[in-house]
Amino acid sequence: MNETLHHIYEHRSIRAFKPRSLTSEEVHAIVKAGQHTPTYTFLQAATIIGVEDSTKKTAIAEICTQPYVAESGYLFIIVADMARNKAIAEAKGHEDFSVLDTADRFLATMYDATMMTMNMVTAAESMGLGAVVLGSINNDMQALIDLLELPPYTFPCLGLAVGEPNQSPQLKPRLPEIAVFMKDRYQAMENPLAELADYDEVVHEYYDLRNASQRVDRFTDQMVRAMGPVPPLKRGEILKVLQKQGFLKR
Amino acid sequence: MNETLHHIYEHRSIRAFKPRSLTSEEVHAIVKAGQHTPTYTFLQAATIIGVEDSTKKTAIAEICTQPYVAESGYLFIIVADMARNKAIAEAKGHEDFSVLDTADRFLATMYDATMMTMNMVTAAESMGLGAVVLGSINNDMQALIDLLELPPYTFPCLGLAVGEPNQSPQLKPRLPEIAVFMKDRYQAMENPLAELADYDEVVHEYYDLRNASQRVDRFTDQMVRAMGPVPPLKRGEILKVLQKQGFLKR
Repeated sequence: MNETLHHIYEHRSIRAFKPRSLTSEEVHAIVKAGQHTPTYTFLQAATIIGVEDSTKKTAIAEICTQPYVAESGYLFIIVADMARNKAIAEAKGHEDFSVLDTADRFLATMYDATMMTMNMVTAAESMGLGAVVLGSINNDMQALIDLLELPPYTFPCLGLAVGEPNQSPQLKPRLPEIAVFMKDRYQAMENPLAELADYDEVVHEYYDLRNASQRVDRFTDQMVRAMGPVPPLKRGEILKVLQKQGFLKR
Repeated sequence: MNETLHHIYEHRSIRAFKPRSLTSEEVHAIVKAGQHTPTYTFLQAATIIGVEDSTKKTAIAEICTQPYVAESGYLFIIVADMARNKAIAEAKGHEDFSVLDTADRFLATMYDATMMTMNMVTAAESMGLGAVVLGSINNDMQALIDLLELPPYTFPCLGLAVGEPNQSPQLKPRLPEIAVFMKDRYQAMENPLAELADYDEVVHEYYDLRNASQRVDRFTDQMVRAMGPVPPLKRGEILKVLQKQGFLKR
């Protein structure tokens, strides 16, 4: 197995960091990985914001409800960004930007920002750093927009906290290949609970080993909770915020 | 620079493949990279479909309007998939799935499928293979859904064609760091055309070198075109298709 596959297969989210800030070289090496991410029809529709202001970092940790975000060695917010390209076209005299409110262009900028985030994770891990992707910034998308002064035709896609790991978590077991890899057509499991019984046990054991005081449930139990009531906090308002930013109107 | 950073920084989309199918070992190594991708609150809300049927592969190449898709060594479609988790919760007796129509859960499954695609690209490239991400499957999302028999609460997120490269393209120049990396807040360029003048020249030269018979335009010119009329083909219908699949209703 080559070194890159090794890093990918050994990915763990790191949620405890040593009190060391990333060096400028480390930050730029990770940003460069972001820059070299594949991009949808060359739009390059993503921007990286490095959150260095400690007040803002703390505010984001509170939005995420994850104290370790404030303690990370560096905090990136990866922004889905059609505003830069709009500004370029505007400077060239273009006037009609109605295309930006289509789902097509929303997907485009979201692909760019999300793939960029993944590349930055891989880069950080290859350098011996730990990282965690922060979907929890969606707890209050509008607050992030205000805090980072994000203009129309942008939104905060994902957060990424990076630092020197201060924990060595077990590898979190993933669904078996048979459940996620299909040939030529979608094939639903006939009896998901029976087919995932072994995997449920593996997940149960993982949680049990990780922390005796934490939940020790099974994957299938977690998925029942995931179908629970409409998400808490401001997560129920995301579509409105995205539309206010100019996206997803048709 | 470590080997992984090297692969990331040297990424090129490969659009010409030698006539060799991937081996089963190669396919499984790439799928394994997909499985180990970070996942939003452990939802694992993505599924990989390997398109081995040559009729289906050709049909997808036609949807993409990219003949090289049919000639690739392996074609993956990465599916955003909340249907598996819904089936699990259903088997456990859960009845209310209204949460799945929120933008929050749409973003969740899109993060998972998109990051998975990126990890699979990196894995393939680390093995000496070439890859190209296919956003062009969005030319007709409904046709892909029908072709791959995708159930409600899924949609085809991205395609990925992989194979032994039969070309050595130049590295496509990316926006300079100053245009994409900001500190603490979004900072729009004051004069985009002046600030990107050097980059425009680099892009112009890239196209000129690549193929004298092809377009030799500048990045800023391309962005004007990107703001052109509502996308052609069926791209104007994507939101309707996503909503029909159960997503993005609120």
